Amino acid sequence: MAIIIVCTGLVPERYDRALRALAPERDIRLWPDHGAKEDAHYALAWNPPAGELAEYENLRVIFSAGAGVEHLLGDPALPDLPIVRLVDANLTIRMGEYVVLHVLLHHRRMLEYTELQRAKTWRLLSQPAAEEVRVGILGLGELGADSARKLSQLGFQVAGWSRSKKEIAGIESFAGEAELDAFLARTDILVALLPLTPATTGVLDRALLAKLARDGALPGPVLINAGRGGLQVEADILSALDDGALWAASLDVFESEPLPAASPLWAHPRVVVTPHNASISEGPAVAAYMLEQIAAFEAGDPLTNLVDQKRSY
Amino acid sequence: MAIIIVCTGLVPERYDRALRALAPERDIRLWPDHGAKEDAHYALAWNPPAGELAEYENLRVIFSAGAGVEHLLGDPALPDLPIVRLVDANLTIRMGEYVVLHVLLHHRRMLEYTELQRAKTWRLLSQPAAEEVRVGILGLGELGADSARKLSQLGFQVAGWSRSKKEIAGIESFAGEAELDAFLARTDILVALLPLTPATTGVLDRALLAKLARDGALPGPVLINAGRGGLQVEADILSALDDGALWAASLDVFESEPLPAASPLWAHPRVVVTPHNASISEGPAVAAYMLEQIAAFEAGDPLTNLVDQKRSY
Repeated sequence: MAIIIVCTGLVPERYDRALRALAPERDIRLWPDHGAKEDAHYALAWNPPAGELAEYENLRVIFSAGAGVEHLLGDPALPDLPIVRLVDANLTIRMGEYVVLHVLLHHRRMLEYTELQRAKTWRLLSQPAAEEVRVGILGLGELGADSARKLSQLGFQVAGWSRSKKEIAGIESFAGEAELDAFLARTDILVALLPLTPATTGVLDRALLAKLARDGALPGPVLINAGRGGLQVEADILSALDDGALWAASLDVFESEPLPAASPLWAHPRVVVTPHNASISEGPAVAAYMLEQIAAFEAGDPLTNLVDQKRSY
Repeated sequence: MAIIIVCTGLVPERYDRALRALAPERDIRLWPDHGAKEDAHYALAWNPPAGELAEYENLRVIFSAGAGVEHLLGDPALPDLPIVRLVDANLTIRMGEYVVLHVLLHHRRMLEYTELQRAKTWRLLSQPAAEEVRVGILGLGELGADSARKLSQLGFQVAGWSRSKKEIAGIESFAGEAELDAFLARTDILVALLPLTPATTGVLDRALLAKLARDGALPGPVLINAGRGGLQVEADILSALDDGALWAASLDVFESEPLPAASPLWAHPRVVVTPHNASISEGPAVAAYMLEQIAAFEAGDPLTNLVDQKRSY
């Protein structure tokens, strides 16, 4: 009943350390040192090599090391097993930090103030109050709902868009394709938190950005993408920034990661680039969550936060 | 029963416009066009020239255009009249925006990420969760209590220090000189929101900064001063930054404003300079507040938010 950790693109040692510390009795293995593959009953995976998970013939449950699972579903040989998404209070808090920080950073015009500081220039810029600014959360799941609440507590007008209608106090809810345009038309700062699915790939394109509010209290619309890089069309974002359709952007995720040095996003004066750091789970939190689910599973209780493979999240 | 607006160092025309719009029947005058001085019954003042207010012999109430009143109390000829402090929901919301933005900015290590972006370098920095970081609000009045609550909702460990003990859910309260050192010793990010009084002048000095927590989850202690410039000793802040006693600072206020171009604070890589923009009241909010109080006063009802001249705030 070994646990195999198969992660690429992040630091899997922290999960290895945390699992060993919390469950010293368990057999924990860190890919590529997998030992006898038939021993593994549980996998903790992030962006595993295609076909790798299929080779563990006694695998029973796959745990995603993040909230998203597109890194698993892209594997055509993915075994037909229950997949558990990571739901971590810490992950939610970290995402809330990122979203609130970047909304405030653009709301308070910090890119311009940073330039003014560099020029040693003392100048007040006009500044709407939070209540005059409309934030729209595209993707009103666990993370989106939490960020929406926090922004609402800061005084912003907050709405969310999701596949199905949500009931969250103080947050206007838009749902489905039919209400997307109305949602965008009332949004000054758009925060993308959608999962990456075939339906959401490339959704942040020229056509969508052109539908954001043009009459807001800020100099122009702002995009914050803390979801997945595959949601965005970077060429469209750059052209929208350059012709004023977009005023500014904070991007934590990119079409290709790490963001290539040749990307014009790095040096764009109206773009904040962060290295996919919006919400990274700590080893102990992931390990505790996984061990709790394994204990339930071995006691015959149901797993929670299972992925609906038809909806891809 | 004219209203005289006597403001220097900000843009008083917005108060003039807003008062005229809201009370077209009133006689509103904008210093230095004061007309017959005996007509003025009410003054809206910000940093008035010393002795000026004493010349309006029929003055009955002085309204401060900001939350602080040190700009009035420094006038040795200040008439012995009721002074009303500005308490404005909008002011509180704006201060909350500033404090939350700058706490998150340092918590999420944005000064370093901005440097990394400039160098086109994709690198993750270690990142404590909000719950591992202790914010201390020095000055737990109306503005401080609101910021404390908002930071607590984001997951930070928040404490406040004030002259007298406060009861705020989820916020640890320290009070008086005797508890100041204990408050500082548990603080990773210090937010100064004290009023400027003889007792608080220069309080943010080398000795105080040296008492901040050295064992925090961030690389070092952070100072955010959104109170008054007179609270801080800039030479001490610079030397603390340079020898590592302080890791970083956001300063909205300065010993001398505008901050002189010669100040090393402008170009310091660990200092964010903003031009005293943390919380600026809009004209309509100030005008509405003042007219409401005048209406109450003329109806024989008591004024609210009166300044205690003995305590200087």
